Amino acid sequence: VSAPKSAAIVTVGSELTEGLRVDTNTAEIARDIQHRGFRVVEAVSVGDDVAGLALVLERLTRVHALVVTTGGLGPTHDDVTREAAAMALGIGVAPDPSLIEFLTPFLARHSDPDAAEQVLTQALVLSGAEVLAPTTGTAAGQVAATPAGVLVLLPGPPREMRPMLASWLSRLPSVRATALDLGVTGLPESDVQLSAQRGLLGHNGVGLTVLARPGDVRVLLLDEGAGESGLASAATSVAAEVGSACYATGGETLAETVVRAAAAAGLTVAAAESCTGGMVCTAITDVAGASSVLLGGVVAYANTAKIDLLAVPPGLLAQFGAVSEQTACAMAQGARDSFGADIAVSTTGVAGPGGGTADKPVGLVWFAVATAHGTHATVRQISSADRSAVRSRATAVALDLLRREILGV
Amino acid sequence: VSAPKSAAIVTVGSELTEGLRVDTNTAEIARDIQHRGFRVVEAVSVGDDVAGLALVLERLTRVHALVVTTGGLGPTHDDVTREAAAMALGIGVAPDPSLIEFLTPFLARHSDPDAAEQVLTQALVLSGAEVLAPTTGTAAGQVAATPAGVLVLLPGPPREMRPMLASWLSRLPSVRATALDLGVTGLPESDVQLSAQRGLLGHNGVGLTVLARPGDVRVLLLDEGAGESGLASAATSVAAEVGSACYATGGETLAETVVRAAAAAGLTVAAAESCTGGMVCTAITDVAGASSVLLGGVVAYANTAKIDLLAVPPGLLAQFGAVSEQTACAMAQGARDSFGADIAVSTTGVAGPGGGTADKPVGLVWFAVATAHGTHATVRQISSADRSAVRSRATAVALDLLRREILGV
Repeated sequence: VSAPKSAAIVTVGSELTEGLRVDTNTAEIARDIQHRGFRVVEAVSVGDDVAGLALVLERLTRVHALVVTTGGLGPTHDDVTREAAAMALGIGVAPDPSLIEFLTPFLARHSDPDAAEQVLTQALVLSGAEVLAPTTGTAAGQVAATPAGVLVLLPGPPREMRPMLASWLSRLPSVRATALDLGVTGLPESDVQLSAQRGLLGHNGVGLTVLARPGDVRVLLLDEGAGESGLASAATSVAAEVGSACYATGGETLAETVVRAAAAAGLTVAAAESCTGGMVCTAITDVAGASSVLLGGVVAYANTAKIDLLAVPPGLLAQFGAVSEQTACAMAQGARDSFGADIAVSTTGVAGPGGGTADKPVGLVWFAVATAHGTHATVRQISSADRSAVRSRATAVALDLLRREILGV
Repeated sequence: VSAPKSAAIVTVGSELTEGLRVDTNTAEIARDIQHRGFRVVEAVSVGDDVAGLALVLERLTRVHALVVTTGGLGPTHDDVTREAAAMALGIGVAPDPSLIEFLTPFLARHSDPDAAEQVLTQALVLSGAEVLAPTTGTAAGQVAATPAGVLVLLPGPPREMRPMLASWLSRLPSVRATALDLGVTGLPESDVQLSAQRGLLGHNGVGLTVLARPGDVRVLLLDEGAGESGLASAATSVAAEVGSACYATGGETLAETVVRAAAAAGLTVAAAESCTGGMVCTAITDVAGASSVLLGGVVAYANTAKIDLLAVPPGLLAQFGAVSEQTACAMAQGARDSFGADIAVSTTGVAGPGGGTADKPVGLVWFAVATAHGTHATVRQISSADRSAVRSRATAVALDLLRREILGV
């Protein structure tokens, strides 16, 4: 395996620099070109300004083996990528006969001769460049030689960009095993980072990236010479070092792990949610095929709902409160009974921003898991004042309790 | 109104250049800084490479009045933004006493002394820089002087970045009235665009941007000379032109509109969800204060759950199927009865990717609303083969049915 060649991505459009649209092309292109031996060093978004774009392209085409642009190839006066590329490379543009033929049927749609002329600007091709024919739109792509390699111009709309990129990449040799993606829950990012580094001792040619999300950390192991078997062996070591908090080594989400484990064990699941408000069920039902595992759930937000739908005894609620070990256990048992499920999980806590007390502050969440063998409760104090983060992390804890119960971890 | 000052945004993280995460910070920051007189000229994503980042920062801080970075401020060896900024500006870093005090409680969580030392790297501050205290995480922001203006370092996670940016921006003079943000649901983007353009006829100095999300379109009216009252008058015209599909003119989400309307009317709500799997309840409970409105919900994924928890007659399920007008009505009535709510909404459909038939294809969703005055059903054929998009759009329809019922629209 040779070292990856450097690449840059340039997304063009004032809707990006003005924040009116989130750029998803960069992530998609960055992933796809890795499998052909390129690594993105820099990604740039610029507005529809021909001089500014030309400067960016001149700089990047001098140093990167591959520069990919998206956007600015349409027919309007805002579409400046062809002209900027010509300026950056110091070459001319000329109409391409095959593109003129392709575009001619579209001219009939415009009664305005100016509009028709604008359509034909899409036939202009950089001197010596190869044309990538459009399949889902009217804008053609182009591939031009640069001082350091190639410049590939692609249209901006993802549904036009995607097939054109795939078609161009399919001609290049595939050079790299997909990275391995380990999922970890319940540990801080910095602990996972240290465990992963310990796990990688003695494993050469493996790159490491650790990403944190609320309640979830992902460990990415990249093949930097180790090869497929070296990568798999590194993943085994890292998973062993992280321990039972590592729930997946093949890129699965925590909810996918729960659904697959329950399906494999032939177990059914139910949920009783208070502070997570439906997020545990939402995460599980987001997995295609969840219907073979999840019987259902109750979002018991009001105390009356806990009493009426989950058979939580009113006296217990009055004595211990909704956020308590006792209520969490009663909710899980109630859900297990109501749905006739093998395993039920419950959540009850203070999501905030209001509602916290000295005894039960914002972020305090009780969980319980009920099975045929009994019910056990767990408590977490989630250290965030952010309602959305408390709910996300509580959801991850609930899913992890299900995983551990199903797998006997 | 003076000309906008030039700004650049730098998002740091190999997860971005490797395409493992879509960058949403750039769009958010680009929008927010416009209201303080900055216009983004260039946005750059770079990996966790200190030398590469330093070069980018050196180039951008020489020409832009404002450079904002996100990411790379955490405790791991991947977090290189502080060091790169110091290199770019040719200044040193030193531990800040207030940040050491702030971080000390977090050290106790780490048994490993290396991890504790790493946590303290977050106390390092650029020479002469101002500290932006963290509110939702442990990473502090920094504001440093540059040759052309200022460099603002912000954390990468949006929920940490957002309040810190807002707090810093709040000190700068506002040079432009905040845009008005209208929410529209149930209409295609192109129809909303045309209605908004008609609504703006005769209103001068108002810019228009239309953004589409699954099930939701947002119309942004920007003050380009109209002034505050001109903007408000334009919003009234646009809302009238769009009609009852316009649910908010002050930036509220659809779920917020439902919670506020129900709270104002003193009405309680419940939900019975099949294909949305908890998303309707999740959206409502995401609104702080939802507990005064939502009594709860049942995620009735299995038919047995529909029968046992929502009292859907087994014969009705057998005759018409789970995805039917009859089942949707029975589910809504069952939820209304079980929770004792004023209004209940139900969803039952084929989310995909499997499970579609000629009669009931993927994307077919039945909804019902039950009140004291009766129950009525609605059907939608959602034209997407994507499970997540079908679920999101079905959730928006269910929330909109609640809104229309509560407000009598």
